Amino acid sequence: MEDKKKKALDKHHTWHGKLEIKPRVDLIKHPEELVYAYTPGVADPCLEIEKDEEKSYEYTDRWNSIAVITDGTAVLGLGDIGPVAGMPVMEGKCVLFKTYGDIDAVPLCIKTKDVDELVRTIYLISGSFGGINLEDISAPRCFEVERRLKEICDIPIFHDDQHGTAIVVAASVINALKVVKKDIKEIKCVINGAGAAGISIGKLLLKLGLKNLTYCDKMGIIYEGEEGLNSAQEEISHFTNLERLHGALKDALVGADLFIGVSGPNLVSVDMIKSMNKDAICFPMANPVPEISYEDCLKAGARIIGTGRSDYPNQINNLLVFPGIFRGALDARSKVISDEMIIAAVYALSSYIKDEDLNEHNIIPKATDVNVHKFIARRVKEAALKK
Amino acid sequence: MEDKKKKALDKHHTWHGKLEIKPRVDLIKHPEELVYAYTPGVADPCLEIEKDEEKSYEYTDRWNSIAVITDGTAVLGLGDIGPVAGMPVMEGKCVLFKTYGDIDAVPLCIKTKDVDELVRTIYLISGSFGGINLEDISAPRCFEVERRLKEICDIPIFHDDQHGTAIVVAASVINALKVVKKDIKEIKCVINGAGAAGISIGKLLLKLGLKNLTYCDKMGIIYEGEEGLNSAQEEISHFTNLERLHGALKDALVGADLFIGVSGPNLVSVDMIKSMNKDAICFPMANPVPEISYEDCLKAGARIIGTGRSDYPNQINNLLVFPGIFRGALDARSKVISDEMIIAAVYALSSYIKDEDLNEHNIIPKATDVNVHKFIARRVKEAALKK
Repeated sequence: MEDKKKKALDKHHTWHGKLEIKPRVDLIKHPEELVYAYTPGVADPCLEIEKDEEKSYEYTDRWNSIAVITDGTAVLGLGDIGPVAGMPVMEGKCVLFKTYGDIDAVPLCIKTKDVDELVRTIYLISGSFGGINLEDISAPRCFEVERRLKEICDIPIFHDDQHGTAIVVAASVINALKVVKKDIKEIKCVINGAGAAGISIGKLLLKLGLKNLTYCDKMGIIYEGEEGLNSAQEEISHFTNLERLHGALKDALVGADLFIGVSGPNLVSVDMIKSMNKDAICFPMANPVPEISYEDCLKAGARIIGTGRSDYPNQINNLLVFPGIFRGALDARSKVISDEMIIAAVYALSSYIKDEDLNEHNIIPKATDVNVHKFIARRVKEAALKK
Repeated sequence: MEDKKKKALDKHHTWHGKLEIKPRVDLIKHPEELVYAYTPGVADPCLEIEKDEEKSYEYTDRWNSIAVITDGTAVLGLGDIGPVAGMPVMEGKCVLFKTYGDIDAVPLCIKTKDVDELVRTIYLISGSFGGINLEDISAPRCFEVERRLKEICDIPIFHDDQHGTAIVVAASVINALKVVKKDIKEIKCVINGAGAAGISIGKLLLKLGLKNLTYCDKMGIIYEGEEGLNSAQEEISHFTNLERLHGALKDALVGADLFIGVSGPNLVSVDMIKSMNKDAICFPMANPVPEISYEDCLKAGARIIGTGRSDYPNQINNLLVFPGIFRGALDARSKVISDEMIIAAVYALSSYIKDEDLNEHNIIPKATDVNVHKFIARRVKEAALKK
């Protein structure tokens, strides 16, 4: 572990920043371009944009640029480490946006935890970009930040921890259900972790036809009328846990077909997995240490296992989603990321593997396959233009 | 003119954004780096920065990054064209920062004209960068924005329209005075235009020894007790125009040794220049059309002429300053751009041309000379480290 830490720090030291900003104009070779790239020529595109703000997509990088923004309150699994400490993650995310989506992404951190101020600050800088990717903002604040920004901004707003995760999980669920030949309308699903990711995953699965969904969180099974729920949990309590179960995660899991863990390490035992229905699908996705190890999950008889880790089959990673969904939104010059675009991304991702190639160890593509991102982008763009 | 406009728009269309954001990590060639550039390895630098925020200068691009920020209220000579319309200029500026200073500069526009909101917004994002270059913010608001940001931010804040311009003009004045063999303490100087640039130029020249300085603005000569001055003009009225002259620019110019124009086109006549002292130095810098043309100025008998234009001798352009001053500040990891650093930039720039090479047509280096920026950076860094 210490070796890995040393290597990660050494790498970051050597990179000395994982991004660089490069001109598309070479003024060393062509100093004569200065009169166009700067004064006096630069005045002309300015005046065109003053007349019609849409021209900013032609004369500046706005057509291809997004901001990756955090307040540092929920960075990875590390929690509230502060905005500046979140920047290595934001830079890393921007590297991935460029590598897999050819998007110019700018990492930004905002030094406030106040929702009003976060919303206002992001709105005020939104004219600089073609989209905003929210990142690592704690729940339930993230729901309000996203909702309010969507209301006031005229560019796509996307909270990746919610929707990116939801999309890749939903695609994995669709394909896993094909393998085990079960219908989403008839299965029983349990999600452990009612934060940003868990809530968004559940809502998306319900849109895709799921009926029987039960949430657990630190207090156990979430039920309607429970004390101490936050606003987002209270909302989902009205359309989940229809049997009004009370109890712990182990009680919820009895007879379940699908377990989705977006919680913490080692919260699920072998016996709990054993109590699930035949052909159980288990996605213990806590990272780096899952709710139950791959090996234990297999030993307990789970038929399909997916984790967040790259060293086991079926890595369920939102890296599969965010480059393509923003590439598609930017290419369509969409003002939003709509439900239709999100659903298109789910089916693009699930259909990327042909049915005949699906099996227990192959329900989701590898994120390093550059073509999957292009495929998602194309489908998302089509969905955006259909509206 | 229409041809030039068409070419400028075509160029911008082809560039389609003058900047690109490039990873320093090649994940296509080295997908195995993903575990360090992103999860889980990225957690380690995050935790180091959480413990000590200064580590952000080692593990992220902060050591080399600045934001170039406008509210779009005073873009070039175009005025208040709005934040998004100012972006081509911000991008152009970022190109110049990279080309001549190797600095990763991010263009940002902020959709508010409210000074409190501008200050707060810039403060809230300041943890993302190693410096802030304010740009094209209207006077007198720019003075307050800069002053307040300097009080609350722990990174260098620099309003280029003020200080960049002041530094290059001051260096030009020093060298011009060497050529005409006059002492700054004894000359009479008239500045036309009491906005961001004019006020900053005057204050810097006073620091360098100038005693006799008179400002003119749209209302004519500025004097102590005058009605209708803004706060910044009122401030300078107390230590300028010591003879308490009233009247117009033409009255101020009689017997002047140095004229500095940062106002508008064609405001100065041949006769007005003729009324100046022997060996007059004239810097009509309004761009693209100066206060008086180079030819008329020459005809009127001015000995040294400098303009903002690249097609005449002595181009007095703040491009000579901003890359070097920020390079020096970043290299010193300075928390401020101090008066000492500004003075160091002035003397670096003025001394870059050897005394024996100074003449009427050669008082200031060319901005496309890459070495001048490195020279300024070195001197500014030294001044920063001396404190």
